[in-house]
Amino acid sequence: MPRLRELLMRVQRGEVPVDAALETLRDLPYEDLGFAKLDHHRELREGLPEVVLGTGKTAAQVADIAAHIADRSGRLLVTRATGEQVAAVMTRLPDAVHHADARVITLERETVTRVPGVAVLCAGTADLPVAEEAAVTAEMMGSAVERHYDVGVAGIHRLLDRIDRLRAARALVVVAGMEGALPSVVAGLVDTPVVAVPTSVGYGASFGGLAALLGMLNSCAAGIAVVNIDNGFGGGYLAALINRRR
Amino acid sequence: MPRLRELLMRVQRGEVPVDAALETLRDLPYEDLGFAKLDHHRELREGLPEVVLGTGKTAAQVADIAAHIADRSGRLLVTRATGEQVAAVMTRLPDAVHHADARVITLERETVTRVPGVAVLCAGTADLPVAEEAAVTAEMMGSAVERHYDVGVAGIHRLLDRIDRLRAARALVVVAGMEGALPSVVAGLVDTPVVAVPTSVGYGASFGGLAALLGMLNSCAAGIAVVNIDNGFGGGYLAALINRRR
Amino acid sequence: MPRLRELLMRVQRGEVPVDAALETLRDLPYEDLGFAKLDHHRELREGLPEVVLGTGKTAAQVADIAAHIADRSGRLLVTRATGEQVAAVMTRLPDAVHHADARVITLERETVTRVPGVAVLCAGTADLPVAEEAAVTAEMMGSAVERHYDVGVAGIHRLLDRIDRLRAARALVVVAGMEGALPSVVAGLVDTPVVAVPTSVGYGASFGGLAALLGMLNSCAAGIAVVNIDNGFGGGYLAALINRRR
Amino acid sequence: MPRLRELLMRVQRGEVPVDAALETLRDLPYEDLGFAKLDHHRELREGLPEVVLGTGKTAAQVADIAAHIADRSGRLLVTRATGEQVAAVMTRLPDAVHHADARVITLERETVTRVPGVAVLCAGTADLPVAEEAAVTAEMMGSAVERHYDVGVAGIHRLLDRIDRLRAARALVVVAGMEGALPSVVAGLVDTPVVAVPTSVGYGASFGGLAALLGMLNSCAAGIAVVNIDNGFGGGYLAALINRRR
Amino acid sequence: MPRLRELLMRVQRGEVPVDAALETLRDLPYEDLGFAKLDHHRELREGLPEVVLGTGKTAAQVADIAAHIADRSGRLLVTRATGEQVAAVMTRLPDAVHHADARVITLERETVTRVPGVAVLCAGTADLPVAEEAAVTAEMMGSAVERHYDVGVAGIHRLLDRIDRLRAARALVVVAGMEGALPSVVAGLVDTPVVAVPTSVGYGASFGGLAALLGMLNSCAAGIAVVNIDNGFGGGYLAALINRRR
Amino acid sequence: MPRLRELLMRVQRGEVPVDAALETLRDLPYEDLGFAKLDHHRELREGLPEVVLGTGKTAAQVADIAAHIADRSGRLLVTRATGEQVAAVMTRLPDAVHHADARVITLERETVTRVPGVAVLCAGTADLPVAEEAAVTAEMMGSAVERHYDVGVAGIHRLLDRIDRLRAARALVVVAGMEGALPSVVAGLVDTPVVAVPTSVGYGASFGGLAALLGMLNSCAAGIAVVNIDNGFGGGYLAALINRRR
Amino acid sequence: MPRLRELLMRVQRGEVPVDAALETLRDLPYEDLGFAKLDHHRELREGLPEVVLGTGKTAAQVADIAAHIADRSGRLLVTRATGEQVAAVMTRLPDAVHHADARVITLERETVTRVPGVAVLCAGTADLPVAEEAAVTAEMMGSAVERHYDVGVAGIHRLLDRIDRLRAARALVVVAGMEGALPSVVAGLVDTPVVAVPTSVGYGASFGGLAALLGMLNSCAAGIAVVNIDNGFGGGYLAALINRRR
Amino acid sequence: MPRLRELLMRVQRGEVPVDAALETLRDLPYEDLGFAKLDHHRELREGLPEVVLGTGKTAAQVADIAAHIADRSGRLLVTRATGEQVAAVMTRLPDAVHHADARVITLERETVTRVPGVAVLCAGTADLPVAEEAAVTAEMMGSAVERHYDVGVAGIHRLLDRIDRLRAARALVVVAGMEGALPSVVAGLVDTPVVAVPTSVGYGASFGGLAALLGMLNSCAAGIAVVNIDNGFGGGYLAALINRRR
Repeated sequence: MPRLRELLMRVQRGEVPVDAALETLRDLPYEDLGFAKLDHHRELREGLPEVVLGTGKTAAQVADIAAHIADRSGRLLVTRATGEQVAAVMTRLPDAVHHADARVITLERETVTRVPGVAVLCAGTADLPVAEEAAVTAEMMGSAVERHYDVGVAGIHRLLDRIDRLRAARALVVVAGMEGALPSVVAGLVDTPVVAVPTSVGYGASFGGLAALLGMLNSCAAGIAVVNIDNGFGGGYLAALINRRR
Repeated sequence: MPRLRELLMRVQRGEVPVDAALETLRDLPYEDLGFAKLDHHRELREGLPEVVLGTGKTAAQVADIAAHIADRSGRLLVTRATGEQVAAVMTRLPDAVHHADARVITLERETVTRVPGVAVLCAGTADLPVAEEAAVTAEMMGSAVERHYDVGVAGIHRLLDRIDRLRAARALVVVAGMEGALPSVVAGLVDTPVVAVPTSVGYGASFGGLAALLGMLNSCAAGIAVVNIDNGFGGGYLAALINRRR
Repeated sequence: MPRLRELLMRVQRGEVPVDAALETLRDLPYEDLGFAKLDHHRELREGLPEVVLGTGKTAAQVADIAAHIADRSGRLLVTRATGEQVAAVMTRLPDAVHHADARVITLERETVTRVPGVAVLCAGTADLPVAEEAAVTAEMMGSAVERHYDVGVAGIHRLLDRIDRLRAARALVVVAGMEGALPSVVAGLVDTPVVAVPTSVGYGASFGGLAALLGMLNSCAAGIAVVNIDNGFGGGYLAALINRRR
Repeated sequence: MPRLRELLMRVQRGEVPVDAALETLRDLPYEDLGFAKLDHHRELREGLPEVVLGTGKTAAQVADIAAHIADRSGRLLVTRATGEQVAAVMTRLPDAVHHADARVITLERETVTRVPGVAVLCAGTADLPVAEEAAVTAEMMGSAVERHYDVGVAGIHRLLDRIDRLRAARALVVVAGMEGALPSVVAGLVDTPVVAVPTSVGYGASFGGLAALLGMLNSCAAGIAVVNIDNGFGGGYLAALINRRR
Repeated sequence: MPRLRELLMRVQRGEVPVDAALETLRDLPYEDLGFAKLDHHRELREGLPEVVLGTGKTAAQVADIAAHIADRSGRLLVTRATGEQVAAVMTRLPDAVHHADARVITLERETVTRVPGVAVLCAGTADLPVAEEAAVTAEMMGSAVERHYDVGVAGIHRLLDRIDRLRAARALVVVAGMEGALPSVVAGLVDTPVVAVPTSVGYGASFGGLAALLGMLNSCAAGIAVVNIDNGFGGGYLAALINRRR
Repeated sequence: MPRLRELLMRVQRGEVPVDAALETLRDLPYEDLGFAKLDHHRELREGLPEVVLGTGKTAAQVADIAAHIADRSGRLLVTRATGEQVAAVMTRLPDAVHHADARVITLERETVTRVPGVAVLCAGTADLPVAEEAAVTAEMMGSAVERHYDVGVAGIHRLLDRIDRLRAARALVVVAGMEGALPSVVAGLVDTPVVAVPTSVGYGASFGGLAALLGMLNSCAAGIAVVNIDNGFGGGYLAALINRRR
Repeated sequence: MPRLRELLMRVQRGEVPVDAALETLRDLPYEDLGFAKLDHHRELREGLPEVVLGTGKTAAQVADIAAHIADRSGRLLVTRATGEQVAAVMTRLPDAVHHADARVITLERETVTRVPGVAVLCAGTADLPVAEEAAVTAEMMGSAVERHYDVGVAGIHRLLDRIDRLRAARALVVVAGMEGALPSVVAGLVDTPVVAVPTSVGYGASFGGLAALLGMLNSCAAGIAVVNIDNGFGGGYLAALINRRR
Repeated sequence: MPRLRELLMRVQRGEVPVDAALETLRDLPYEDLGFAKLDHHRELREGLPEVVLGTGKTAAQVADIAAHIADRSGRLLVTRATGEQVAAVMTRLPDAVHHADARVITLERETVTRVPGVAVLCAGTADLPVAEEAAVTAEMMGSAVERHYDVGVAGIHRLLDRIDRLRAARALVVVAGMEGALPSVVAGLVDTPVVAVPTSVGYGASFGGLAALLGMLNSCAAGIAVVNIDNGFGGGYLAALINRRR
């Protein structure tokens, strides 16, 4: 903002006439105006970790970016980290934590209080990496997360047993592959907002998760919205945003 | 078969040598051989009604075919009958029955005993025409049919209440549109064979029933197979075939 | 629950031994047990209007159902109402309100306090019916709704002017057809949860809204989830659920 | 069920009034009620093997689960077993059987009587792994299975020669890739229920089995239903369910 | 060609030097060169009727074009003619012939000898318009056509009865909707070139003929090639081209 | 901009201290800052007509908007105008011009000089409405347009005859349906930038223009880019933009 | 046929009455009847090589089958042979020929006269393997083949130079990837039957050859039919069938 | 052209009569006529580099072709070069330049003046290889290129800061994956022609770049056309063509 302040001071001192000042303002790059509303955004995001997507980067690139973020903010979330990337980051940042199930690395140099209100559901081991990505993301966003990883359409009694827990949550992330029916069943039982995450688990006519995605979009139950296939990060992020809004 | 019998008699009488007879046999049209195994098929199908698909025929054509079948066999099933076709057939065959919900016309001039064992399920009014087409078809194939038309994923307690009835059946036809999750939920609760019928009920990303179809094909529950979208006839037909096999 | 109470009283009076009571309980229909957790659901949903989807019903059917709901609960939401359905309902329920833009009929016989916190955005007239369906739905669910109907990707300055209003909301419904880029742009500017609603507005390779749907699912911005094409109801419902959770 | 029995005994003894007992029942977790109808399901499934899907699990995980099931029930079916998984399981369970063609491992510690009635058909070597998965699955479900692995649309006379055998079966599993026409041809010749299994055998516009799948769904012959692409397990399972129902 | 001839004559007379002639040739429009090989094409096509596609033209336009062609060549083929177009053309050309089944109008003012060698096959009434379009097209191209319109996959014995006729043909046009299996079955029985024509007959997952198209492209039998959905004209045209080449 | 000017003047007069002025600037709505770069855009677009898309608007709405634009700028382009819309607009603006082939209405109250450099190509009558929409749009954008409407892949000699004209243009709009091969052939012959416009002309596996679209995107010739199916407006607009840039 | 001959002889000798013979005939397996028309097929196919598809078989399997065929008929065609399969076959059959470009192995132990009439066209190296598979297949089927491997849409003058050669052929196989426009251009120039072979050459929106396939199916030129993506074998086989028919 | 010149000279000398010369002309191969308009094309393309697509060629093939081009024209562009291809080419042509980011090799033996006017935009590292392929291609085509590689929909202020630069360009190449919204946003801000390049960056429902492609085709902003997924070469080529046209 120094350029803007200086301009105003020169106006104040009569060194720059008003018309010339208007002209100058018109030519200042947007950013230099300093009062850019867009900047509020960054402040508002303060308190959230910066996120690095591992896919498509080399191990060295990820480690460099991670170290840089760790220095600046002390809070870090690396998603879809490959084995090599994990090794490179953990060497540079020994206090980082590797969540192997979630393929995620986190770092929090200050203790963060987690607000309860998010639950993550899936049917079992095949969908677990995506569910864990959602859960760890929501935790890094400041939510305490309940995990229900044995509730599937084929074992509906386990779901019925947890209805009270699910109703108590402020946001549910429901992860499912194959036919993707679990979010429909859950939303038919509770009034909690459901963020549905289709996974690519399946074969044949699942078409890499398309069947689950379409199933969730066409749910006959209300109160569901859907993120991209295998996008555990997106599911956890949105659930935490909902939970933050009190 | 007369040509074949005559040939053999001429062999017997010595009028035709064996080699010439072999030659002749080689040249006889397949059908004329008379003993065609393919014909057994028709006999085996005796007792089943002949089926007329209304789609793509004029009212006069349907009425003519229907009258012809009624004369010959006394049993008739017309599916996807339009209003005009219904009027034309009912005029010619006043003893036929019009099932308006199912868009079906039936005729049975002799009393047929129905064997219990088929149940048809759907969630409500939108899927009802397809469900009724399945039910009436199965009835015309000789099965007594139980209808459960208020069981949906969004009202799962009604389904739980009927589990005993569903387990007692020999074949279930489960009709569902939108995300098509009902067959999965049903097959997760019972061991009865499930014939799943996706419907084109839905909009947007249901893509005319594709979402329901894919959902059913990718069911995480075993014991399900799927017929074409809106193919109530196919679902009822297969369920009745299963029920007939004792 | 009378059957269950009576059973317990007979146990108390020693008329039924414990083992027999256990046996009887096992055979009682689920519903009759009376304590069905599933029923809590309905109570919890109290305060929400019952919803009737006009599509696929006759005008008479819609009017009957609407009148029935009006008598019982005094709160009603009919979506996708055709002209005939509107006429039939308004005749039966003169105190109902027809929202022509939204193709929706509402009835509220008691004053309901709306909680602020939901904003609905779209780019203009073509997407307006879906946006209004979302807005009226959220209102009927108890939310006060801000409408921003002139913010498009091609007029991004209007969006920048409203950033403060959008940041203040608890849930945004962002409606867009064609390439469906608006939710991405919005979510890149604010941290409010975004429920994205693709519309079928477009032609050619929009494939009935598929392009917008895919665009939204693949958003490079976090904090977005998507409902079915043209599903304004689903978008408004979820936004109101999020807004209710405080 | 002990909690429920104790509650009833305390009612009987007058230690708990009826109203308090009703209240307590309402708060008991669903499962603890003990009489859960859902549990009947498990008993009903007794006699069937437990199934482990190899895909997506480590060799160690599969071996652990397999050993656990073998101890408990003595009956096991592992599908889509990789070479490593086979090695790990066979080391732990030397009495298990590896069906290399079917990519399946089975274990049966007690002799099981197989009921005849299932036939599996395919055109040759390319579809054989899926056909064998179906056949071994049906056998493990208690059916004796006839294999017809040389019957294709391009060699229709071989099919005609077996018509009697196919008519005698209670359920046919018809496996086909490429254009997937075999189930149509078979169902045009016999009245036996046909479970059609499309395979991903093919190239180009077969789109990983989609062509075969669509072909089967659109069959002009009645009496066919379809399972997912390459889902030999699902086909064999359903055929055995049909065959069990007498 | 007059311009070219004149140029050469002026070269001959010495009025134009060789270099200038070369320059002029370079600037002559391609067509004016007169010796354009492309023109051979038109001559070669002599003897074939000119074809008018009715779709997307007004009745008046079709009638004008048809009358123009009739005057010039006396041979005409109008395909996909609507009722209005038929009326307009028949008024202008009373000696034209309307083939109602084929939706085609033909005119031949000189007797044309038809060469035998093309057969057209389909399963029945629904595919008949496309089959007839193929048959009439092939006739107008100079082939005598055998029609086999009752041969379907579900009535394979009728196909077996005609094998000798099919083997005697030089080209077969096989028309089929739904699963499109007929060309595979035919090509498995004979060595005659098969032009497969998928039709849009079907519903649900036939996706407007896509299922039939994919089935035919993936045929396990060799000797088949495929034209566009419902393209009876294209099928008949190619078969006649094959038949012409002796 | 008055608010900004006033603020600066008050700073100049010492009525507002610099820090308070900075604070105020931060709170001014973006638009009011007056110097918004975004506004340059509008000025830059001056000289271009405003465009109204007829689709999805009532005749009254279109006429109102058109009259409003006509008053303000005297230049107007209405695309995809229906018959009713044309009537309504022509009544209000008798000096407007209706281009029936292009389904377009234009108004230019001042004479505009057209700069040569755009050519529009298509194969014939079916693609003509889209080609004309492109041509009229480019004209309204200030380009003089050459039309070549008889050049198709099936009549390649006509294309060869025009090569010089096509090479002389600065931008070509090449419109084609069915297999969409024309842009590839054209771009193989010339170095002029080609804007390819696929049309929905075709049937069966053209899938509403998808085949043409994919063909153009996969062109083996360089120098081509593609707009949406039937988007003549987009093609003409881009060609004129290219032509304007000298 | 011995069983049939014996039966007739016993009828002749009076050892078996006519009715009993009829009964026996009815029970004879189809094949044993000896006069099966289906068998004519094999004889008719005599003179053609037997074909082995390498895909999905082990090197040992291919070598065994190849050796078996070589012994029996002396003519062999192995397509899509991998390096291992080639090594295995060449070791067993040192007189076989490996066509590396075509990924094909052939064996002909007797000299075969090739009939001219087939030409294979493609644009260059990328499509060459498919083109060569077509060419070698047609040669093995008894056709002499002309290869034109440098004719593409982007070099159309080379195509114009060969028009006479293409018009002289009885069948053309036109191989093309990317937008697949070559068959349209060729068929616009000649009247020879065109078998179009789309290839998977391309990237992005070519979707593995789908774009080329759709382009060919939607050709605006008549006289084209299409085989599966990359199906050089199918293209060459059909062209040779057409060429054989004189 | 020698044959044509000789022919004209013999006409001039009276050695060949005009009619015979006409006949000879008719039989000359097209190419030999020498004045083929098609040849102008090559000359016109002079000054552009020849392009080699690495994909699908061996390292030796690429090196041979590259060396051949380098000898002949001194200007070379190899795209999609693999590591092996790079090594082979650099060994043969040590003065070539390897652009690792762009996967491209270039050679320019004479200094070429670059004309400013092309800018390439993308959001970051994932899209960078495609953006660099576009940039290097445009440079080799004679354009000076500005790179803006940090402008994304999620950081829209950086885009706003560059508006002046973007407006000054003659053609923009805008590269984007995922939802592909960047070209819409850019075209909403400037009037410069936009060549949009979708990339395959993304996962799940991005379907290999299809989502970005559809988004760009359906852009609500005018002035955009689209090339194939990941086709940086095509984008840069067209932008340079536009920039060349002054």
